[in-house]
Amino acid sequence: MIEQEIRSAIACAVNDVHEKNPIAPSITNTVTQDFVANAQLAVGGSAAMLYLADECTELAKVAPAFYINMGTAMPFYAKTLPQTARTLHELKKPWVLDPVGIGLSELRTKILIKFKEFKPTIIRGNASEIIALAKLWELVDDNYGGSLRGVDTTEKVSAAKEAAIELAKFTGGAVAISGEEDLVTDGKDSIQCAGGSPLFTKITGSGCALGGIMAIYSAVTTPFIAALTATTIFNLAGTKAAGAAAPASFKVKFLDTLYELSATTVAENFRVVGSFEEVFDFALQAPEIKNILG
Amino acid sequence: MIEQEIRSAIACAVNDVHEKNPIAPSITNTVTQDFVANAQLAVGGSAAMLYLADECTELAKVAPAFYINMGTAMPFYAKTLPQTARTLHELKKPWVLDPVGIGLSELRTKILIKFKEFKPTIIRGNASEIIALAKLWELVDDNYGGSLRGVDTTEKVSAAKEAAIELAKFTGGAVAISGEEDLVTDGKDSIQCAGGSPLFTKITGSGCALGGIMAIYSAVTTPFIAALTATTIFNLAGTKAAGAAAPASFKVKFLDTLYELSATTVAENFRVVGSFEEVFDFALQAPEIKNILG
Amino acid sequence: MIEQEIRSAIACAVNDVHEKNPIAPSITNTVTQDFVANAQLAVGGSAAMLYLADECTELAKVAPAFYINMGTAMPFYAKTLPQTARTLHELKKPWVLDPVGIGLSELRTKILIKFKEFKPTIIRGNASEIIALAKLWELVDDNYGGSLRGVDTTEKVSAAKEAAIELAKFTGGAVAISGEEDLVTDGKDSIQCAGGSPLFTKITGSGCALGGIMAIYSAVTTPFIAALTATTIFNLAGTKAAGAAAPASFKVKFLDTLYELSATTVAENFRVVGSFEEVFDFALQAPEIKNILG
Repeated sequence: MIEQEIRSAIACAVNDVHEKNPIAPSITNTVTQDFVANAQLAVGGSAAMLYLADECTELAKVAPAFYINMGTAMPFYAKTLPQTARTLHELKKPWVLDPVGIGLSELRTKILIKFKEFKPTIIRGNASEIIALAKLWELVDDNYGGSLRGVDTTEKVSAAKEAAIELAKFTGGAVAISGEEDLVTDGKDSIQCAGGSPLFTKITGSGCALGGIMAIYSAVTTPFIAALTATTIFNLAGTKAAGAAAPASFKVKFLDTLYELSATTVAENFRVVGSFEEVFDFALQAPEIKNILG
Repeated sequence: MIEQEIRSAIACAVNDVHEKNPIAPSITNTVTQDFVANAQLAVGGSAAMLYLADECTELAKVAPAFYINMGTAMPFYAKTLPQTARTLHELKKPWVLDPVGIGLSELRTKILIKFKEFKPTIIRGNASEIIALAKLWELVDDNYGGSLRGVDTTEKVSAAKEAAIELAKFTGGAVAISGEEDLVTDGKDSIQCAGGSPLFTKITGSGCALGGIMAIYSAVTTPFIAALTATTIFNLAGTKAAGAAAPASFKVKFLDTLYELSATTVAENFRVVGSFEEVFDFALQAPEIKNILG
Repeated sequence: MIEQEIRSAIACAVNDVHEKNPIAPSITNTVTQDFVANAQLAVGGSAAMLYLADECTELAKVAPAFYINMGTAMPFYAKTLPQTARTLHELKKPWVLDPVGIGLSELRTKILIKFKEFKPTIIRGNASEIIALAKLWELVDDNYGGSLRGVDTTEKVSAAKEAAIELAKFTGGAVAISGEEDLVTDGKDSIQCAGGSPLFTKITGSGCALGGIMAIYSAVTTPFIAALTATTIFNLAGTKAAGAAAPASFKVKFLDTLYELSATTVAENFRVVGSFEEVFDFALQAPEIKNILG
């Protein structure tokens, strides 16, 4: 895909969500549910949070996309998470995984190992989490660097790039690494998205909200475009809200801006770190792209 | 009751809550607890959220009213919900039921069937939920139309009017249907309340917050007046806050306004869709009302 | 300690948290997690909320401090809370206990009795809760007055002063009573802190957020200074935000102010009810203080 195609696809995704109001139910941590749901509503989607295995399976059947964030694991997650992920995978429904807290307990490790089979269409995490997941799934070498500190990352986004690419190749979907400059890859193209705000680290749940929005866009487009659209609208709203100067009013303004942004504005503000030529170097060498460009 | 009587009763309810600061504990979903509690506090009430059966039973004994919202059901709800509802019913305490997610799982169906016996004094839901509950309790015919989509309604308020009336007749309390124009009925009079804001659908938990406020007013007045008072103050605050234009600042302004509204202003803004003559046509034909009016 | 020493220690604590960004994981109620986490982040700390025993134990081992709030107890608290507290105690890690809901159920009573052995380094509660805990741990007479109503206090701060002192003597840490004028004691000195805002009672979770901030400061200073620093910055931010006039905008402004306050401003605004001479009368008579003062 090249720049203009991505822009068009982003504009389409933003519009489609505004028009179709798709629901992306979530199994997500209790800390940031309100923020995730309000972010999903702000971009035009619909939200529902649940815990019970049969209820999540039921919603997985009828909803066009799903969001699983492992945050505040509770005992019943042992049944709910794998069963829901299996249903989503069997029905070929897009679903977003946020492997927050990876490595913290046996329960999480067991669930995440099972998830390998159910191939999340988008994986979103910080650099440490992406590296840890790629290791757990044995897609990168055990020596591939990375450590984890609570919910914060200790790794730079770039350090996890190869891990992200391997994960995306394996799932056939997309992977998004959150950090100072977010990276989104589908295993072939890897795009570093500019924008955002340092204030995202001063409010709780910005990563969760981003994952929840990715799930919404997953309902109307491919995993790669869904991840790019969510990242672009998220960072743009963050940049526009950063005039607020302090975290709580930033959060209010950020959600307001998510709601107000038009498809055109979002697409126009899709910004890549470095040049597109560089980013798509690999893609441009592919014969089918050369044909498109003449 | 006629218009002026209702207005006086609403003013009394708002004032009484300001003065008595009644608590309405909740078993409610984890997504919107913060919003429900802050809305309850904003109108002058007090809040407490709990999960364990013995704790809820204990609070049911000492609190003047209770709110049960089935939102994010967890395994222990199977014990907590019926036991709490039984206690409330036995002690003749007012309690508000929000049957959100009705039909989603066997657990919810089982609990809601038990609730028939414990007669919630107010039932609040969207049109689909009200219809589904009336069917589950076999108060309307199975052919009575209605389907459910996540937490959003697919039915118009008017389509659920008969179901609401049957539910209210059965419980002897009140039923409130939320939608573009809310309908409140005690099984005899059915009042369609004007006001509100489309932004209510752009924030998560407005229905929950409305239910939580109804529980607060239940502590000081009848179910019918409690439902009308909550609906009136809620919609009025929504209308006043709608100048905010975007959802997150709307929510802040809405809560602020709930806190600032005086009893007089709320009572004055009790607005009915259509004329009171029409609304109370049935009531006005009753001999006791004719006597009052001379 | 005397006034100037406390001021310096407060300034150090605020600065250290800004620089070291310490994490204080929490087991805390589902209602106010978002507020607690955002308050912890606003003062410069880091947050993580969890439920499972092994995960909390794991974090207790690596984190410099911990916050346990008993709010919305769930069945698995029976295992998680004692195991986490035991780990913290064995590793001599500072941890803050908020015994909200004390007396509401056997589960809470059992857990709180076990906590006596694991000596929380800071106990924070309203007057009723502090009295109830001192009774439960048999540190004051059963006749020592006090009753509990939901999560609100029915007792004046002063009524719980002796109970707080006994608790602090027993744990060797600090105790903070929240109320119109907060009292912080280490069992020797008891300081009544001025400031705050009546609007704190109109938003849910201000006590929880205060406890969460105390845990953050516990990571960098003594329990007594941590409790004083948290109380001072909290009340100062409340006073500054009170211009907001209504609860929801007050909460936004409050969090913004927590984020903006400098160490110097906080230290300068450490205000005591009554004179320092009076407050430290006891301390000033101690020989080591006399030496310092010459």
